[in-house]
Amino acid sequence: MELKTWLNSEAPAVAEALDRANQQDYYKNRSIGFAGKQTVYRVLDALRAAMFPGLNETEEIAPERVNLFIGNNIRTAAVELCEVVELALKNACPRYGEDEHCHICRDRAAEITIELVRSLPAIREVLRTDIEAAYLGDPAACSAEEIMLSYPAFDAISIYRIAHKLYELKVPVIPRIMTEYAHQLTGIDIHPGATIGKSFFIDHGTGVVIGETCTIGEGVKLYQGVTLGAKSFQTDEAGNPVKGIKRHPDIGDRVVIYAGATILGGDTYVGDDSVIGGNVWLTHSVPPGTKVYNAQPQPIIKSAVTNE
Amino acid sequence: MELKTWLNSEAPAVAEALDRANQQDYYKNRSIGFAGKQTVYRVLDALRAAMFPGLNETEEIAPERVNLFIGNNIRTAAVELCEVVELALKNACPRYGEDEHCHICRDRAAEITIELVRSLPAIREVLRTDIEAAYLGDPAACSAEEIMLSYPAFDAISIYRIAHKLYELKVPVIPRIMTEYAHQLTGIDIHPGATIGKSFFIDHGTGVVIGETCTIGEGVKLYQGVTLGAKSFQTDEAGNPVKGIKRHPDIGDRVVIYAGATILGGDTYVGDDSVIGGNVWLTHSVPPGTKVYNAQPQPIIKSAVTNE
Amino acid sequence: MELKTWLNSEAPAVAEALDRANQQDYYKNRSIGFAGKQTVYRVLDALRAAMFPGLNETEEIAPERVNLFIGNNIRTAAVELCEVVELALKNACPRYGEDEHCHICRDRAAEITIELVRSLPAIREVLRTDIEAAYLGDPAACSAEEIMLSYPAFDAISIYRIAHKLYELKVPVIPRIMTEYAHQLTGIDIHPGATIGKSFFIDHGTGVVIGETCTIGEGVKLYQGVTLGAKSFQTDEAGNPVKGIKRHPDIGDRVVIYAGATILGGDTYVGDDSVIGGNVWLTHSVPPGTKVYNAQPQPIIKSAVTNE
Repeated sequence: MELKTWLNSEAPAVAEALDRANQQDYYKNRSIGFAGKQTVYRVLDALRAAMFPGLNETEEIAPERVNLFIGNNIRTAAVELCEVVELALKNACPRYGEDEHCHICRDRAAEITIELVRSLPAIREVLRTDIEAAYLGDPAACSAEEIMLSYPAFDAISIYRIAHKLYELKVPVIPRIMTEYAHQLTGIDIHPGATIGKSFFIDHGTGVVIGETCTIGEGVKLYQGVTLGAKSFQTDEAGNPVKGIKRHPDIGDRVVIYAGATILGGDTYVGDDSVIGGNVWLTHSVPPGTKVYNAQPQPIIKSAVTNE
Repeated sequence: MELKTWLNSEAPAVAEALDRANQQDYYKNRSIGFAGKQTVYRVLDALRAAMFPGLNETEEIAPERVNLFIGNNIRTAAVELCEVVELALKNACPRYGEDEHCHICRDRAAEITIELVRSLPAIREVLRTDIEAAYLGDPAACSAEEIMLSYPAFDAISIYRIAHKLYELKVPVIPRIMTEYAHQLTGIDIHPGATIGKSFFIDHGTGVVIGETCTIGEGVKLYQGVTLGAKSFQTDEAGNPVKGIKRHPDIGDRVVIYAGATILGGDTYVGDDSVIGGNVWLTHSVPPGTKVYNAQPQPIIKSAVTNE
Repeated sequence: MELKTWLNSEAPAVAEALDRANQQDYYKNRSIGFAGKQTVYRVLDALRAAMFPGLNETEEIAPERVNLFIGNNIRTAAVELCEVVELALKNACPRYGEDEHCHICRDRAAEITIELVRSLPAIREVLRTDIEAAYLGDPAACSAEEIMLSYPAFDAISIYRIAHKLYELKVPVIPRIMTEYAHQLTGIDIHPGATIGKSFFIDHGTGVVIGETCTIGEGVKLYQGVTLGAKSFQTDEAGNPVKGIKRHPDIGDRVVIYAGATILGGDTYVGDDSVIGGNVWLTHSVPPGTKVYNAQPQPIIKSAVTNE
């Protein structure tokens, strides 16, 4: 059959079927709704441009216009964020739709937006300590700007710190969209619920996973492939996972965790100044100042001469 | 030398050399040709927008226009896909160019496109079970929409299921471009040739590799860094790899495979309801209901006090 | 409070605070300055379009215009690259600003740009050997074009080879921005300082890390998750890392390194034709022709019947 004929005669039935399916299982449980994900991405870009003007722009900003540029980005981010937060709150509200004059969600969205914008200078200051930690933590790093322009840790941590603030303010869905955007960019998957102290650095980073109820002290350094995860999780009688239980580890100050190490469990605590070696699998607590490393399995070596 | 002078005097010779090199080793083996990759990306975006309108849009769609929106995306995707599939088929045809009136490839491209569009509601229904599996499989997940908006598994699996359909229809090159697009977005590398049952979930996902001849049952859950791979591969007398041999494992129903596990080999079968622990290295079959885990290497622990 | 009221009354103070913070710690240490990262991305895209016209375009190029297309891309890339290299050099110059008539950096930027453009045909020829290596190294690969269109290794290695040339020419910052762009696309993190011979292939690739002072021979093949890294690094009396020391391994010709293997240390050498098995941890040299593999930890297996 000709494709065009088919598109006119039979494709509408496919569109109809897809529309019906969406109405059944998707529209009725909408949260931030249509186009919400791209709005969140735009908000994130504007907030980061306000904190670090020029870093991601495609056109140069004249120095005398930088202040204006920052102001415009704050304004853009605030207006869009407020709208999308209102949607997220409304759709999470069990009484949504009952009273058309209710403006609790709208007011709360404005408060949250203001609170986030107010905290931008403080977030920026913590990010400055993160950049410094990267400089001190990697012999290959040559300048602060190099870190901002070319270290995945800077993208991942700057997005996480914004998302975490919104998570603390109990905004649904949006914080996770933000950190998953960072995960896409960097391969570093930090749940916005995790609590992370200043001067935090992750080198290379691909494959890092930091769980929702994890806490991390100040001056901590991770390498690629580190998992700070859950041992397993409880299910209720219906077999559904029980949400909101502490299930990820606590990491003290100045801890270094080398590539591929796995630390699991909500009652696992790694004491200050500890060092966890590459590929270590740790599921219990260790006191401050502990060095944990694998007796690396002695590889079997067959030289060309003694080859079987 | 001035750059401009050089660009006028000597750069043309560089362009000439590059053009010649392309004519030798690239144009003559063209498949989907110029701009094909971006066309495939656009097709994929339109197909996913038809199945889940609004998820990736930058502008909101009015509810009364959703049906129209779905129809338009189907039409756009179908027309572009048909063209690029025709190119891919033609360039794989050993008799291409012999008979200018031959329209076998064009007709087959239309059939394939129609077959794919027809199967969209069924693909969408399987994706619904995948979303449900994510909700049940992750205590941090709060709603189906959160999963669609912020779980890399949803991107990776929705793209894989479209690509797999085209792979079954024996379309060259295009399915791999699709799943590599998903790999870029998510760090999850699923070959379009793999066969994967419904209710499939991958948590975090960075570093997951699922090989071409792998089969996976229903209700399976994977974590980050899992490899379902080949042991090694055969080469012919000329040293070239023999293509098309079964070389990746079969995974039964309701199997859970934890982070970093590696399962290798075309004759390796993991029975239903088995659990494979973190970092396990498995190269032989296990019967249904098996638990496989590493005696995790006991890490060596030096506390601050007993430190050497 | 109304969001709009707050934006007018109090947001300017936030903008002011961010502007001040940027003036203190960011503007004064600017390197390639505003919008530099996106410029580098555009340069990279133009250079790759010059070498492989059509691969990433959104619109088809008519065959008779390909030569013109290559020439235009060379010209665009050269002009933009020259400007951004000049900025990078100037800001790294300790005497920058002393003499407004000084044009050393501008001249050097032109020389570097010309040198890079001149080497494009040679870079392209090495990339041809890399594509061939992918075809021979992966049974799932069906054609050279499939590799160019859908293998992350091609993106990662083609970007690395351009970045490495600029690294050799001692351009600051820009080479790292380039390879981090590749890292974002592919999950493969190759430092531009690494030296890598022809016919290089990386399969899947997510999580691969190749350090700054690593050297790799010809015909080498890596799989996902391989780290060629540093054991640890020296710090000076102030606790700052000592930059520029050899700290990553040397890999001989025709070595194969399987998924998840870690090879560490600046005095570690892996001899020609060696094979390093999956997950091996290697911190000392091995002679040519060596096979190194783990006695994989025997997993503990509990079948359904003997289950505790």
